[in-house]
This record gives sequence, structure tokens and C-alpha cells, in this order.
Amino acid sequence: MNRLQRALDTLVERVDTPAPIVLVDVMQDNIDRMQSFADQHGLHVRPHVKTHKCVEIGRRQLKAGAVGITAGNVGEAEVFAAAGFDDIFLAYPIWPAGTKGARLRKLTESTRLRVGVDNVAAIEALADAMGGEPDRLQVLIEVDCGARRSGAPPEIAGDLALAARRRGLVPVGVFTYPGHGGAGRDARRRAARDQEAALVTAVRGLTGVGVTAEVVSAGSTPTVEFTGSGVITEIRPGEYVFGDLNNSRLGACTDDQIALFVAATVVSEWVPDQVIVDAGTKALSREGSPERGYGGIAGTKAVLAKLNEYHGFLALPAGEYRPSVGSVVPVVPNHICPVVLNFEELIVTDSTGTSLQRWPVDARGFLS
Amino acid sequence: MNRLQRALDTLVERVDTPAPIVLVDVMQDNIDRMQSFADQHGLHVRPHVKTHKCVEIGRRQLKAGAVGITAGNVGEAEVFAAAGFDDIFLAYPIWPAGTKGARLRKLTESTRLRVGVDNVAAIEALADAMGGEPDRLQVLIEVDCGARRSGAPPEIAGDLALAARRRGLVPVGVFTYPGHGGAGRDARRRAARDQEAALVTAVRGLTGVGVTAEVVSAGSTPTVEFTGSGVITEIRPGEYVFGDLNNSRLGACTDDQIALFVAATVVSEWVPDQVIVDAGTKALSREGSPERGYGGIAGTKAVLAKLNEYHGFLALPAGEYRPSVGSVVPVVPNHICPVVLNFEELIVTDSTGTSLQRWPVDARGFLS
Repeated sequence: MNRLQRALDTLVERVDTPAPIVLVDVMQDNIDRMQSFADQHGLHVRPHVKTHKCVEIGRRQLKAGAVGITAGNVGEAEVFAAAGFDDIFLAYPIWPAGTKGARLRKLTESTRLRVGVDNVAAIEALADAMGGEPDRLQVLIEVDCGARRSGAPPEIAGDLALAARRRGLVPVGVFTYPGHGGAGRDARRRAARDQEAALVTAVRGLTGVGVTAEVVSAGSTPTVEFTGSGVITEIRPGEYVFGDLNNSRLGACTDDQIALFVAATVVSEWVPDQVIVDAGTKALSREGSPERGYGGIAGTKAVLAKLNEYHGFLALPAGEYRPSVGSVVPVVPNHICPVVLNFEELIVTDSTGTSLQRWPVDARGFLS
Repeated sequence: MNRLQRALDTLVERVDTPAPIVLVDVMQDNIDRMQSFADQHGLHVRPHVKTHKCVEIGRRQLKAGAVGITAGNVGEAEVFAAAGFDDIFLAYPIWPAGTKGARLRKLTESTRLRVGVDNVAAIEALADAMGGEPDRLQVLIEVDCGARRSGAPPEIAGDLALAARRRGLVPVGVFTYPGHGGAGRDARRRAARDQEAALVTAVRGLTGVGVTAEVVSAGSTPTVEFTGSGVITEIRPGEYVFGDLNNSRLGACTDDQIALFVAATVVSEWVPDQVIVDAGTKALSREGSPERGYGGIAGTKAVLAKLNEYHGFLALPAGEYRPSVGSVVPVVPNHICPVVLNFEELIVTDSTGTSLQRWPVDARGFLS
């Protein structure tokens, strides 16, 4: 908290609110800690750029030892490929309609591209989209481990790998996402166990049809600590780079490890037990719930009880903490990923508050 | 629905999903209908650009008869001023810290700028920020009419107008936002009545201190139909230009008047009674609730039951409608404003599906 306030105090004259402030030393510690954990457990780190969409941060992740990056859509992959990233996993069951087939082909000219598949129709469509050169595209079979989102049943991963190979695509492994974790350390551990089990089944399926699973890829920040020394070869954490209140509540980061907050200004104070700040859904997105709130003020128990587009309703029932009109307060988001992409650039400083850089959110808006 | 499907069919080879598709003829009808309503009731229309953030659409609103535009922050005002808009109301209690004071001064060089104020500290800060020329800035006193957001009690509007005049700013009127409407036509009518009452009190306050309220400005799309022939001189609707499911539920538009939908592709179908589409929070924002869903498929009862960042969970319990992998479906958002700003550009077509233009979302990302 002290370092947040110090950073804010030095920025307030130069930065217009709402603004996303990154404490770069805290962020770098997060990057290095994740890499150390992975190194100790013999895992590759392939960070998901959905969280930051920022080339500079991706470069820092690579420099720390990441083997490549994970992207969520073709547009993100293009932005990072254009910046020189040459090993990209599109961890999504891409359907190559519209111009996406041509875009994927183009991407394979400059980067080793892997994409997710979870069904035969998509395999056929991807092979068609690659024209005469399907072997330029590597695929990972997505299996479900309990999130009931995308991903085939692990038992048929082998069939899908074979279907891909028959069409000339290059199956190199399997991946899943343990998004069914829920709250608490035990729930996260169970999700991680489900993940391991699904991946073991899937790898066995690939082996059974003569496909080597070079890559066995797992999410995510909340489950990473339970990953290691099993079948998994690679982790795809995203949120660890900044952290947020959700991860703090899950026990996946501490409050001191949160590296991004949104500086907001108090603009109105007419309602008892409430002030209005200039961060609403346009800055924070509507992540949270009426019960949990939509973000907190660092170092206090105050939460945003409600958001309109340009207005954050900061509830102050206790009466102890009441910032006055014109005060700048550090909002800690519930979920960091949808916050970053609202902004053109990140305001980057450090805990001493002496440096100030602006990093573009390069891949914002690239949604397809 | 037919026209949506026709537009989709013609676009599907040229547009990568997720993509925001605008039916320009429907949108133009919305613009013209609002203007006609206002003309009939002797009201000025000053549309809020927060909904579209698009210069081309703002120009169409002006061409239809709007007197100027409403913006929610300085950045939006700057984008539209740079595009030649010369009459802008910043309907927000601006606090001119950081570089905002200088930015406001700069804006007044090319546009008639009005800003909201609801407290004396902000009046002092704005007057200071204007340097020696506070009379270049017009202010409207914001009063609360029940939304309990920003806005002073209507009874002290006169005091604030006087405080502004004493510091050399130019008070020209009052405004409010009836955001407490809630669901249903009666609730909207009550909110509109509260709005009228608060504005009457506020105008009386200004008159009492010798300030003429040239402008008496009211929100918003859901309450507009109850506005007219009273004290109000100007309305600031935003969402009417596109409409959405929330406005349809409120009775403020019909389903056929919805002019923007998000084309999404089905990418996975492993879970019974569900398919996954490629529109998640990164495209739609998290607007809705688990009960109401996060958007619907036009012409069906299917709703997105859950969103992850790149995944929309389309629940299909009835079993009648089940789009297969590769199908493109038209998602109608609950709340349109947070959707538009996720995208770089709007894909603009018409009900015949013959035209195809791309309009940039010019003011996206300009949050401060």
C-alpha cells in the first residue's frame, strides 16, 4: 500500500485518470517467480498474452525464460508475430472462416504456429485453409477436464490426432484448461488433479495411435502451484503477471504481488457513505457482483459497490476512510484481463515512483 | 431476424468473427425517429457519443438535426473536436487534475465547451485551470433526481451557479440523469417525473440568483418518451442509436429497432445443451447476470448463459435450435455501449446486405 501511495503521489500531476498504473518491479518479480517455479519443476512457461496484450511485457516474459507465448485469437497472434515473436500457441479451437484461413497461413511464414482443435470439422476446415501446405500448421488437441467449455472428451484425443495427421496437419500434443476450480486452495488442487488426469488419458490416446505428445499444455495462474512432476510439459498462466483481487481471494497471489491498479479521481461526494470516482465500466469492465463489489481501494476495505459507464460508486459505510473530491485513489480490479484492454497504454512506474514510461497495449481491439 | 440473417449470409466470407455488425438503415431510422420526437416536443437533441464513439455516426446525428453532442470524458470530447464538432457538452463532473486543465483550455479554442459541475471545489479548480480566461468555459450545474450518483441537491443549484459566476465561469443551465428508472414503463415514467421535478427546482434556484437557465438538459434513452412540454430544453439519449436487449426489455425500443449485433462463430459443441461461440467478455463485456444471461441470439430464445474471455457459453436447453460448429450467429447484446468500445471498427451493412463499409470506433480507448 505504501508503495502504491508513493507511486500515485509522484504521478498525479502527470497522469490523467482513470489510468492503469503498473509497478514494474512488482510485475518483474511476478514474472521471475513464475519462471523459477517452472524451472524447478521442469516445466516450460508459455504465458498467455490475453492479460497484458503488450509486446514489451511479452518480451520480458521471454527474456525471463518463457519458450513462447499463448494467444487467444488470430489478431493477438498477428500483433505479436509482427513484433518478432516466433513461437505462438493459439490456445483456442479456431474456426478458419472469413479471412482467418489466409491469416493463419500468413502467420506460419514468420512464426512456429500451433493452434487448438477439438473436433473433426475444424480439422478439415484448417487443413483446407492451409491449401497445399497443411504441414506448416501444428495442432494441439484440446480436451475437457471439467470446465465443460471447449475441448473433446480426453478418450477421443487420439482419434482427433489421427484425423489431423491424415489431413497433413502436424499433431504435437494436447492441452486443457482447468477453469472449474472455484474458490479456495482445495478446489484449485482438485481442478489441477482433474487436469492432470485428463491430460494423462489424452496423452495415452495419442500414443495409442502412434502420435508423440511432445507438448502437454496446462493452464492457469490459479492452478499452477499444483502443477509439476507429472505428464504436463508446459504451463500457460496469464494473470500472474499483474495479479488481481480474484487471484488474491483464491490464494493465487498476495495483495503485495498485485502489480496493476487503476488510478481514479473522486469527482462527487453528495451521497452519504459514498463518493463517486471516475472509473466505471469503461475503465474497469463489469467484473464482480453486487455482493462482492467491482474492485477495491488498495490498503482499505472500501469497495466499488456499483458501476455505471463513467461513474464508480465507492461505498464508504465505515466512515473511517473518506477521500474528498479531487483525491486520487488506487482501485484494485477484481479481474485484471478485461481492464487492460480498455486502455490505449499502461502507465509504468516502480515502487520508488521515480520512473515513468508508457507502454502501448498493442493487441487491444484485435478480437478476431 | 430475416434481415439479420440476410446480412450475415452476405458478410460471412468477408468478415472475421467476433465482429460488430451495424444495419445502417435501421440505425438511421432510430436517429430520425428520435429527432422527430424531439422536434415535435420542442426539444433539442444532444446525443451522447459514449454509445458509438464514432465520428461518422455523430455526423449523421448532427445532420438529422442534433444541436451538438454529449461526451463522457475529455478524451471523447477531444476526438470529436478534432473531427470538427464545435458544440460539446461534457456531461460529467470533471475534476481538472493532471493535464486535464490544459486539455480543457485547448478544447475551448475550437469548440463551444460546456462541462458539468456539482460542487464548489470543482468550480474553483476549473476556474483556476482556465487561467485568465474562465469565461471561455460554460458550466451546467448537475443535480440529482434520484439516481444518487453525482449531482448536487436541486435546492443548491443556484448557489453553485453563483459560485461559478463569481469565479468568472459562465453558468448556462442545469442537467440531471434519471438513472434510477428500473424496469417497466411505469418505473420509467416515475423516473422522468422525478427528473422534471428536480430540474424545475434547480431552474428556480438559478433564476433566484439572477442566472438564466438557457439549457435544461435531461437523459436518457429509456425516459425520453416521457420528456417534453415542461422545463426541459434538451435531451441526451445515447443508446437509442443502436438499441439493445436492455432497452427492449424496458420497452424503450422494439427488437426490430436493434441496429447492432455481434456476429459470432460456433467453435465447439461437446457439451449437451450447449455450444461455444467465439464471443466472450473481450467482445461483449460482462453485461448481464447468470439469471438473465449475457446476450441473446436474434430470432431465437437462446441466451449466452456464461462468458469467459474468448468463449461464450450458448445454452440450448430446448433442443430445437442448435447451430453446428462453423455456423455464424447474431448475438444481440444486453447493453450496447460497453460492446462497441471493444472493437476497432464497426462493420456497416444494411438490411439488403449489399453494402459493406467499415467505420472506425474513433474514441475508443480515450478514457480520461
